[in-house]
Amino acid sequence: MDGELTRYCPRYHRAAKMIARRWTPEIVRALLAGATRFSEFTAAIPGLSDRLLSDRLKSLEAEGLVFRSVTPDTPVRIEYRLTDRGLGLAEAVRSLAEWAELWVTLEEDQAEARSR
Amino acid sequence: MDGELTRYCPRYHRAAKMIARRWTPEIVRALLAGATRFSEFTAAIPGLSDRLLSDRLKSLEAEGLVFRSVTPDTPVRIEYRLTDRGLGLAEAVRSLAEWAELWVTLEEDQAEARSR
Repeated sequence: MDGELTRYCPRYHRAAKMIARRWTPEIVRALLAGATRFSEFTAAIPGLSDRLLSDRLKSLEAEGLVFRSVTPDTPVRIEYRLTDRGLGLAEAVRSLAEWAELWVTLEEDQAEARSR
Repeated sequence: MDGELTRYCPRYHRAAKMIARRWTPEIVRALLAGATRFSEFTAAIPGLSDRLLSDRLKSLEAEGLVFRSVTPDTPVRIEYRLTDRGLGLAEAVRSLAEWAELWVTLEEDQAEARSR
């Protein structure tokens, strides 16, 4: 996209509705980094409950960003991967990650944790 | 950022907590596009209530992404602008906007609206 951003765009609004939910950016990042199994997400992301992970994966699947594959093994193997549509989010995730590297300090998060 | 994304980063997590909230990406986009007055945001963003706009602007101010200036005029003039930290989000907003251009159809949003 070249030039000025408009103040509003209905497609961007729709994109924000899909992505701008608690835990979703963290889950998409873990998917981009190669996590595929349910337990890999909960191991990687501190504080993410099974219930919320399950809810977010279902939403991402319904939006066509993630597909769920079931391998008939013993036990059955369930894996989550980004679709092409989901993989397209890599740049947005990287941009937010770069912003965080530049502008977010961990002290800030610790201060917030202490104040709770 | 070069190379592989890690599965998790506490700074990214903190960034996601600031930005990944309903209406916040839309408000940051409008700020980047030059909206400054309360009424400009509600005029630009369909469906955004005064109450939620006020709440999100307060959060963005508390996070140091937005500053609020009060000009002692008659009536008093209140304006919202991005700080340098907030302006740093431009790339992430553009990346999400580009993804939306490529991957989001408006038909999808209309179908969702009909199903409500």
